[in-house]
Amino acid sequence: MSTDLQPARVWDRCEHLARCSEQADGLTRVFLSGEQRAASELTLDWMRAAGMTARLDAIGNVVGRYEGERPGLPCLMLGSHLDTVRDAGKYDGMLGVVTAIECVHALNARGKRLPFAVEVVGFADEEGVRFGSTLLGSRAVAGTFQPEVLDKTDALGITMREALQRFRLDPHKIGSAARSRQEILAYAELHIEQGPVLEAEGLPVGVVTAINGASRFQFEIDGMAGHAGTVPMNLRQDALAAAAACVLAIEERAKRTPDLVGTVGRIDALPGATNVIPGKVRFTLDLRSPRDGDRTAAAADLKRSFSDLCAARNVRLNITPTHENRTTPCARWLMDQFATAIAADGLPVRELPSGAGHDGMAMIDCADIGMLFVRCEKGISHNPAEAITLADVEIGTRVLLRFIEQFAPRASV
Amino acid sequence: MSTDLQPARVWDRCEHLARCSEQADGLTRVFLSGEQRAASELTLDWMRAAGMTARLDAIGNVVGRYEGERPGLPCLMLGSHLDTVRDAGKYDGMLGVVTAIECVHALNARGKRLPFAVEVVGFADEEGVRFGSTLLGSRAVAGTFQPEVLDKTDALGITMREALQRFRLDPHKIGSAARSRQEILAYAELHIEQGPVLEAEGLPVGVVTAINGASRFQFEIDGMAGHAGTVPMNLRQDALAAAAACVLAIEERAKRTPDLVGTVGRIDALPGATNVIPGKVRFTLDLRSPRDGDRTAAAADLKRSFSDLCAARNVRLNITPTHENRTTPCARWLMDQFATAIAADGLPVRELPSGAGHDGMAMIDCADIGMLFVRCEKGISHNPAEAITLADVEIGTRVLLRFIEQFAPRASV
Repeated sequence: MSTDLQPARVWDRCEHLARCSEQADGLTRVFLSGEQRAASELTLDWMRAAGMTARLDAIGNVVGRYEGERPGLPCLMLGSHLDTVRDAGKYDGMLGVVTAIECVHALNARGKRLPFAVEVVGFADEEGVRFGSTLLGSRAVAGTFQPEVLDKTDALGITMREALQRFRLDPHKIGSAARSRQEILAYAELHIEQGPVLEAEGLPVGVVTAINGASRFQFEIDGMAGHAGTVPMNLRQDALAAAAACVLAIEERAKRTPDLVGTVGRIDALPGATNVIPGKVRFTLDLRSPRDGDRTAAAADLKRSFSDLCAARNVRLNITPTHENRTTPCARWLMDQFATAIAADGLPVRELPSGAGHDGMAMIDCADIGMLFVRCEKGISHNPAEAITLADVEIGTRVLLRFIEQFAPRASV
Repeated sequence: MSTDLQPARVWDRCEHLARCSEQADGLTRVFLSGEQRAASELTLDWMRAAGMTARLDAIGNVVGRYEGERPGLPCLMLGSHLDTVRDAGKYDGMLGVVTAIECVHALNARGKRLPFAVEVVGFADEEGVRFGSTLLGSRAVAGTFQPEVLDKTDALGITMREALQRFRLDPHKIGSAARSRQEILAYAELHIEQGPVLEAEGLPVGVVTAINGASRFQFEIDGMAGHAGTVPMNLRQDALAAAAACVLAIEERAKRTPDLVGTVGRIDALPGATNVIPGKVRFTLDLRSPRDGDRTAAAADLKRSFSDLCAARNVRLNITPTHENRTTPCARWLMDQFATAIAADGLPVRELPSGAGHDGMAMIDCADIGMLFVRCEKGISHNPAEAITLADVEIGTRVLLRFIEQFAPRASV
């Protein structure tokens, strides 16, 4: 199979998009910004050069369409997002858009039409940096955009409604960005892994099983502050020692269940002096799993064991749930088709969950979803040090193209 | 034995001293301040009213002398400090000065002279708040005052030398405050416990065995920051999980040795975001014991076990010693005489170490030292909530007076 793919073009386009940035020495591109306008214009041009019709939809997503064997067929929708976090890497999001365009470019170069249309979407907002609300682009496409968020303001006090108008979009028409389940055969996204699993196993690509659900909690332990020299060990109510036991309990519990991860990212001990026993400690827990049952069971176990160990240490425990997000499973039939496309490259098929969130979390409301992960260096992401190799771009794009060409809609659809 | 002691006068004098403060709604009184001047004047007056000659020495200590059966005899030196921490309690330091004056007052009221002189010192600086150097008053008396500290500056940039001059003291004459071992039969101090042991055991007073030596360390653990969702548990180098294991190892090790205490008072996890695995953690260790061998053995054990557990977790450990202070033992013969005085009150004799530092740490260079602890509420100190009871003041002062009256100099001295 001659692919006509040009991985160097994918690479150059990622570099090109990275220059659409708030700052000269790094990459920040937020929703409805001038930088987003510039990135969108580039993407629209590339889509058209690849043989697609292309447009901005009502929320600012870039949408390209490559018709199938006849006009108006349901589509296989590909894509990812074009917005970034602050001081971002060049591949999180953009790689999925640019590789999808490259695949259509290759099809078009061969004049190949498929028994379905192919659409490529560059979502205008996934990261939620500007308005603190994520997945705005994919929610609009899935028809789950909540009009209340139009009242959210950015750091300058500009509402999303006003920002849309300044971007020459009509906030009243966002509903028109929504697509029906009948129009979309599946949503498939290529994305960098943002984790170290593929690298650790020497694999360029992997098949995502699910976008992990997440639970977050804030814990506060109240003990008794005291003089580090004068309070004997047996009379202490050391909030930090109790928190340390909780941190280790989290680690131990997470290790016991496959794919479960638990992280304490923040800890504050008060009053925070070398010679004072901490009287109060606050810490967070971020718990994720590709299986909701595993996650909720672990959360329940941990809350119980924290309560027990705090009681035994005569300190008080306060638990505040701060976030809850269900698991977004990838469709088995799409996983299987990605697996076939990987195996055809002579590569082992590694299935792995996605610990990070993606547009598929919104798109699942209008389509079955599938994801292909591409290895990234050390799992680093949301960071200027985000890195991939040209060789992996080539493999990833080739696998994606094979997936598209061999795509078979789900029988029952 | 009629004691003629007036505990209510002790109480009122503590209240009175507490009003010599930088701020109206709390107590702060630092070295060479106007507030110290005021407190010194009060103390000098009370000393004279108790039948003592009284003066400021060359560093600003208040020194009162009650002659013995004939003038010029060696003295039993009593005392504590008159300076405070910021936002202090009313008893840490002051109670030892005021109760000692009360005891002399009682002796004088009865016209009782002893076969030795009694001196009472109100040290001008123990806490070291103003110039960041502690025990300045007692070091001057012990002859170990380091002239280099005269160049230290306060928050306003005023040197200690200049501050002494403004207080009408001559920095060149500090040496004249020094007393010889021949002049001092013993140094004995009454102080609040600043810990919860006596309260927990229902005892008003206790005999101090030693002022604990202390070692302090700063630890830094370098792991690998990573996405809380994407890095599987087995690929993590979580600096906080490693630090938590260290915190529990400290607790476990300290519990194994009597009187040893180990405290992690500060911990900082970086970058400190809910969804990021901590890549770097800094924490402190404060380790104290009344036996230097116990303390250094525990420090060595902990350093070894931290190294092992950090190696097992594939994180790097950096250790910086930040402070080292040897144990100051109380003299057995003085402990015994305090014990006799306590037992004569019908009370059990509880011996306990002092976890906090005291003027005895300097005075040991010119005299054997002994200390009597008085119970304080919940062990709270260095805090406006520092609290004692009038009943305990009465018992403590009575025991101190009995100790003075029955004091027998060490045979070999």
